[in-house]
Amino acid sequence: MTKTNAGRFFEDYAVGDVISHAVPRTISGGERAMYHALYPARGALYSSDEFARASGLPASPVDDLITFHTVFGKTVPDVSLNAVANLGYADGRWVLPVYPGDTLTSESEVIGVKQNSNGKSGVVWVRTTGRNQHGAAVLRYVRWVMVRKRGEGGAPETVVPELAKTVAPSDLVVPTGLNFEAYNFNLAGEPHRLGDYQVGEIIDHVDGVTVEEAEHMLATRLWQNTAKVHFDATNRADGQRLIYGGHLISLARALSFNGLANAQMIVALNGGAHVNPCFAGNTVRAWSEVLDVAETDAPGVGAIRLRLVATKGACGELRGEDGKYLADVLLDLDYWALMPI
Amino acid sequence: MTKTNAGRFFEDYAVGDVISHAVPRTISGGERAMYHALYPARGALYSSDEFARASGLPASPVDDLITFHTVFGKTVPDVSLNAVANLGYADGRWVLPVYPGDTLTSESEVIGVKQNSNGKSGVVWVRTTGRNQHGAAVLRYVRWVMVRKRGEGGAPETVVPELAKTVAPSDLVVPTGLNFEAYNFNLAGEPHRLGDYQVGEIIDHVDGVTVEEAEHMLATRLWQNTAKVHFDATNRADGQRLIYGGHLISLARALSFNGLANAQMIVALNGGAHVNPCFAGNTVRAWSEVLDVAETDAPGVGAIRLRLVATKGACGELRGEDGKYLADVLLDLDYWALMPI
Amino acid sequence: MTKTNAGRFFEDYAVGDVISHAVPRTISGGERAMYHALYPARGALYSSDEFARASGLPASPVDDLITFHTVFGKTVPDVSLNAVANLGYADGRWVLPVYPGDTLTSESEVIGVKQNSNGKSGVVWVRTTGRNQHGAAVLRYVRWVMVRKRGEGGAPETVVPELAKTVAPSDLVVPTGLNFEAYNFNLAGEPHRLGDYQVGEIIDHVDGVTVEEAEHMLATRLWQNTAKVHFDATNRADGQRLIYGGHLISLARALSFNGLANAQMIVALNGGAHVNPCFAGNTVRAWSEVLDVAETDAPGVGAIRLRLVATKGACGELRGEDGKYLADVLLDLDYWALMPI
Repeated sequence: MTKTNAGRFFEDYAVGDVISHAVPRTISGGERAMYHALYPARGALYSSDEFARASGLPASPVDDLITFHTVFGKTVPDVSLNAVANLGYADGRWVLPVYPGDTLTSESEVIGVKQNSNGKSGVVWVRTTGRNQHGAAVLRYVRWVMVRKRGEGGAPETVVPELAKTVAPSDLVVPTGLNFEAYNFNLAGEPHRLGDYQVGEIIDHVDGVTVEEAEHMLATRLWQNTAKVHFDATNRADGQRLIYGGHLISLARALSFNGLANAQMIVALNGGAHVNPCFAGNTVRAWSEVLDVAETDAPGVGAIRLRLVATKGACGELRGEDGKYLADVLLDLDYWALMPI
Repeated sequence: MTKTNAGRFFEDYAVGDVISHAVPRTISGGERAMYHALYPARGALYSSDEFARASGLPASPVDDLITFHTVFGKTVPDVSLNAVANLGYADGRWVLPVYPGDTLTSESEVIGVKQNSNGKSGVVWVRTTGRNQHGAAVLRYVRWVMVRKRGEGGAPETVVPELAKTVAPSDLVVPTGLNFEAYNFNLAGEPHRLGDYQVGEIIDHVDGVTVEEAEHMLATRLWQNTAKVHFDATNRADGQRLIYGGHLISLARALSFNGLANAQMIVALNGGAHVNPCFAGNTVRAWSEVLDVAETDAPGVGAIRLRLVATKGACGELRGEDGKYLADVLLDLDYWALMPI
Repeated sequence: MTKTNAGRFFEDYAVGDVISHAVPRTISGGERAMYHALYPARGALYSSDEFARASGLPASPVDDLITFHTVFGKTVPDVSLNAVANLGYADGRWVLPVYPGDTLTSESEVIGVKQNSNGKSGVVWVRTTGRNQHGAAVLRYVRWVMVRKRGEGGAPETVVPELAKTVAPSDLVVPTGLNFEAYNFNLAGEPHRLGDYQVGEIIDHVDGVTVEEAEHMLATRLWQNTAKVHFDATNRADGQRLIYGGHLISLARALSFNGLANAQMIVALNGGAHVNPCFAGNTVRAWSEVLDVAETDAPGVGAIRLRLVATKGACGELRGEDGKYLADVLLDLDYWALMPI
């Protein structure tokens, strides 16, 4: 009998199952420093205790994507070890900031299953919740993956969850105390406030980063993500290591500082797709499209809904005439961030 | 007169000499984050303050191999700068956990010397002790190296220390307060307790990691290990940088989580050999063999003795018909770890 | 209208302008761990809280070059995004140590402008000040860069600041409380005190490091330095990424431990030039020349003025017969450090 984790197959998921994921993790200033070395992240709220205090928070939280990757990484051994594809995200909500010293755990509920017509795989939907050491939720999101079947058995009853296309502005959770009335645009790096952005506006983030093997592996391990394809060059016929999709999310988000320096806190993930694989040696650029703007109840705080695209190609190019994503596009993400009004 | 450290030669060691090594080092959460980025380390006790507290410790200690590498690194300028080979380890004992904020120093006593018959080199045995800021020992181990002679002088009297082949179970030091009675196997990542392992059992840890130059250099510098061969591509005729053996120890140990997630604390190093060199581009895998099991006095805590092998080859293959290590084998380590019973 | 930072051009600088740079940054033990992984830094005062306390400081400060890079990095978007060349440094003074938990900001005053005779670019001098969360200056230095002109307009009145060739010993600021009377040379790593160094002495630091792309990019991002040339392999015709000059400064300084272990605190930067570009794959070595020695008022504390050279070539070789720097030389730095007398 093997003692190693073979991962779950499609048959191992039933709607209503709750999976408590392994390896709780205490975050320190070390994770933040690594994050800032791995990505060109420059958000003032996430760089400076003083700036965070001036914004009504007790200290600088860790970057929201540290929370996402940490919570997500724990789900990999239980959810995506035998995944054929990571199909999508929906209804992601950051509901409590995470600070150095906090310990995160992760739990997923199976909310949908649908066997594919080929009978060899199926789609599984899970709603994952990350919690801190007090048991308080810090992040919730839905993800669905295509998973191999173990055998030839029959199909379970299909359950496809209804998922809102976007998180409604009224459902955005603004951290208690957050206040951008005395926001220092100069220290934050750019003068643009929410009113300066137009729905439909495209922002070219200009900078590019050529990705190295050591970098994406350092990142992926930091989140205790164990998927073999990211680390083992013998795993694919072409000898390439597939870069963890979350590495692209963080890279693109960090690049978007240049033009969106004031899109400070990520509060919702409306959807997202890892469109094409990324490999070491690729030079990654990013552009954003303003999809919506909204008010919040917090003083001086508005919300901006953004499409964030990571690409090896040109700004603004997303799909071909056939409606399919272009080959250069790596990531298409839809999120809400908080911005001073 | 040169001011740089030329290192010691065989003639510079006399049995009874005590060498106090340079550069005390304060460990922080930063070292832990780097460690978790460098290796796929996932031990719950070393990831979460909450899990550690539930196990009777005041907080999450740093990974035991951080202690080992830090203490070892300090000995390099005094012990192995002119080493021809790192021959072995024995009688290693972790006697006190190390926490962020602790400051480590390192000291070695020469306990054996034996000139080689060629008259050009000799073997030196040292017992190294790592201590924290209170002067309390945290780690002790014996290591022996082959060192070049400076000149043609006569041989010193041969002293070969008697070293036990393994640390006896009764000599294992369990950290004060450690208690695995309420151990959460689900959070730890695997259900297997000590009773589930059979002596002789082989565990294939399945995953592989293809090693990069930047990674092993980051690691080796982090431990302030200064040996030239790890950093300088002009140092060998083939232009390759030799990977620090300790990098392999940590990599293999981290890979062994998959099948040995509950082998939490390393408490003894019985022996070990760096069998073949490892270079960037190699894909490293690991397997373990259960060598022994034992009881301890701590509640719920048992001990498991493991052979840990790092290899470029197949699980379970160690030596050829001639009794020699196979060319693919990189590391053969023998250690005791604490595991819930 | 673009929202991304196009950087300033020569016309955008007027003598007397004060630029408050963006993104304040809180430093933690994470930044120190990353620094010690990136460079072979081993200064005892910067590694150990205990050693620092024995020297009269409250704890171990972060390496002085962490302060430098952090303060410098913030100036890049405002000062050197359109720079053609980084021409020099002068009058650099570290005036207060930085500890984990401190938050740094950066401000520059334009103190000189001089249009080039070609009318297409000009030289700008700025005096940059880094401050902590209490508003106290921690570092001041002058840097001058050649910046492109936006247009064809006329030249501003030339102002060339008078800059001392070196910081006078009487202007060196020794941290309050620093005391080397009980300095432990053994723990520091070398026996040489100030009196052991002769003006004119050349020290070969012996060790070499072959630089990797991932390393210099991790470092450069850690300081939130955004210059495109360091990250984007498509930016130059030859596909190479230019290594941030500060990476060389830190690498050479760390290598200089071997022979200058007791040159503990950098207190002044007299001047410096990035002589030739460095690329991944280069093997970097370092040598130092003792330029001067001086007393200070602090007990047991002297000052040593050093030329620090990073090179791909041989120790002691700096300029050719034509007086120009040799092609192998990468960095020529002139600084003051504090050393036990």
